[in-house]
Amino acid sequence: MKKITILGSTGSIGKQALDVVAFNPDAFEVYALVCNTNIDIFEEQLKTFKPTYGVVYDEQAYKNLRARFDSKATTLLMGMESIIEVSCHPTVDFVLGAIVGNIGLIPMYHSIKAGKTIGLANKETLVTAGALLMPLAEETGATIIPVDSEHSAIYQCLKGNDHGAVSKIILTASGGPFRGRNKGELENVLAAQALKHPNWSMGQKITIDSATLMNKGLEVIEAKWLFDVDLDQIDVVVHPQSIIHSMVEYVDRMVLAQLGMPDMRGPISYAMHYPYRKPVNHEPLDLVKLGQLTFEAPDRTAFPCLDLAYEALKMGGVTPTVMNAANEELVYKFLRGDIGFYDIPDTIARYMAQSEQIEAPTLDQILAVDKTIRQKIKMEV
Amino acid sequence: MKKITILGSTGSIGKQALDVVAFNPDAFEVYALVCNTNIDIFEEQLKTFKPTYGVVYDEQAYKNLRARFDSKATTLLMGMESIIEVSCHPTVDFVLGAIVGNIGLIPMYHSIKAGKTIGLANKETLVTAGALLMPLAEETGATIIPVDSEHSAIYQCLKGNDHGAVSKIILTASGGPFRGRNKGELENVLAAQALKHPNWSMGQKITIDSATLMNKGLEVIEAKWLFDVDLDQIDVVVHPQSIIHSMVEYVDRMVLAQLGMPDMRGPISYAMHYPYRKPVNHEPLDLVKLGQLTFEAPDRTAFPCLDLAYEALKMGGVTPTVMNAANEELVYKFLRGDIGFYDIPDTIARYMAQSEQIEAPTLDQILAVDKTIRQKIKMEV
Repeated sequence: MKKITILGSTGSIGKQALDVVAFNPDAFEVYALVCNTNIDIFEEQLKTFKPTYGVVYDEQAYKNLRARFDSKATTLLMGMESIIEVSCHPTVDFVLGAIVGNIGLIPMYHSIKAGKTIGLANKETLVTAGALLMPLAEETGATIIPVDSEHSAIYQCLKGNDHGAVSKIILTASGGPFRGRNKGELENVLAAQALKHPNWSMGQKITIDSATLMNKGLEVIEAKWLFDVDLDQIDVVVHPQSIIHSMVEYVDRMVLAQLGMPDMRGPISYAMHYPYRKPVNHEPLDLVKLGQLTFEAPDRTAFPCLDLAYEALKMGGVTPTVMNAANEELVYKFLRGDIGFYDIPDTIARYMAQSEQIEAPTLDQILAVDKTIRQKIKMEV
Repeated sequence: MKKITILGSTGSIGKQALDVVAFNPDAFEVYALVCNTNIDIFEEQLKTFKPTYGVVYDEQAYKNLRARFDSKATTLLMGMESIIEVSCHPTVDFVLGAIVGNIGLIPMYHSIKAGKTIGLANKETLVTAGALLMPLAEETGATIIPVDSEHSAIYQCLKGNDHGAVSKIILTASGGPFRGRNKGELENVLAAQALKHPNWSMGQKITIDSATLMNKGLEVIEAKWLFDVDLDQIDVVVHPQSIIHSMVEYVDRMVLAQLGMPDMRGPISYAMHYPYRKPVNHEPLDLVKLGQLTFEAPDRTAFPCLDLAYEALKMGGVTPTVMNAANEELVYKFLRGDIGFYDIPDTIARYMAQSEQIEAPTLDQILAVDKTIRQKIKMEV
């Protein structure tokens, strides 16, 4: 039985991870669940899964839950110190890092430092701190299994293969809701239109990132750190059906791909059961029913965020942190209707050019830059 | 440096294997080349690759070559005993079994018995003697790496994975030149029409097998033996572009696929370099350029040979040998215009029903049944 900690259990990934636990009651024992403020769902989860610890990040939310929750099975804890504790405790076999946003980076750092086996769903961890954390993982023996469908696909296509023989990582992209439209057509597009993602049901922020292709840009950066390849070895192919989740090309021109229906329980289950594969209860792939899979090149003019990500990675240091922080705040502004679609890449590019560089930043420096950029963007009209 | 023996060096697979050797002069040393009668090409190969031994199976062809060939580097040998010798010699690291037809089974048997690492391109080896040879390979520690594009794909998709977690093997089929036509339209079809294969450039016999889907049927039988799965775990999907070479579905609904341009040098090179991957000089896959991949169910009414293969495998014993021998002779008759397209499956079915069963046949029994069936078919009008 694997003892697991789920960071961000009330989010989309966290909930689906608990579906996997519920479907495999003999495989997992929940050691700790962690949430931020969503205590209604959290309380249900505590009652159902009876973890040893339930940790609430937000102080007020913790107090509210504390006032009404009474269980002998579960001890309630509060704050980042407790989150770090349940992410590093020697008894924990697997930590799912599914906290959304930069705050999720802190427990991931400590968990990697503790040499844990980690299912990584938090984007910021590698986007902003890949250069810091991958060597640390190497040092401590931590195993990082990606939970993104794309990176999980690549991880599976690399397993058992000669890593030195990789010639290319091919990330597939659905192309998002605006695929096929040109820059002129997208100038005045609204958030509501961007929120209609064709294949994946996800949170609002990631859905906008999918519409701008920044999501794919962030994945390019993650792929670079996860799989230790050069930037020019990472390609992006638009594949609207989201059936091929990504591919690896080897020097012998053999391409390995992982296919499946778009269902996050697939990569979540893979990471949780790793190195084994266990039955799941979601829909199997039926290529005959699907009929066809199509492919096209990404439109880098209509979707400049993709190239911004390549650029940020080339610039290195804290530039990916600047890009990521600026993007997130700009997406919120776009969602509120405060700015237009192309204000996102234009503003990111401006911040990337203007911000002070820090080579080989520490965790604290990364967090500080992240905070500063967010504040600056919030202050802008 | 790997010392290699190529059985059938003047055939399509053999020639391409020598292309791989020529492209990797530091990786391979040719220990022996083996041909049947094609001594003109063979002589060129001996001059170029300077193997220690050149073995000609046919006595008259050997004598003709002997009369004109003079080389200090290469000793000429003749006949099956010599073929077996160069397939088993302790100095040989890798044996490519690319002799066409049932005769290729004999050196494969001895090579497996000697515990060699084998690149297997000869269909008959597993179709007729899988039940005999797979346990033998297990016993001697022989490694059998398939050279068929489909089985090579599956082999690659299984590598590094939990074999017990396989739920399905999905063989792709181009559908051949008659894909989409119904039984009525195919009644009077001619060999010349069947020889126009859309994707692969192959010999005449295998091209007709591709038109009847018997080729896929034979591959189903090979897959059963190579990958130790139940027959109902093997699916066939028609994929006209022949880009996805085959797939493996795992219990977690993850499907791994191997993709590439249809070029036999891919799987040949993979088998020869195994367990490494080395650069090749053929065209890379470009999914954007291809644009789309399509999938459909095989038409089991128009192409009854596919189900005959499943049936033969279920019947077991020598039935796959009966089916394979009957098919081969009937294909030759069809190529000569002596019989019609559906005489192939109809006659095979008749022979399968009538022939005497031998449970757990020996190699000699398999070879005897093969010979008998061929003679009978030849005698039929």
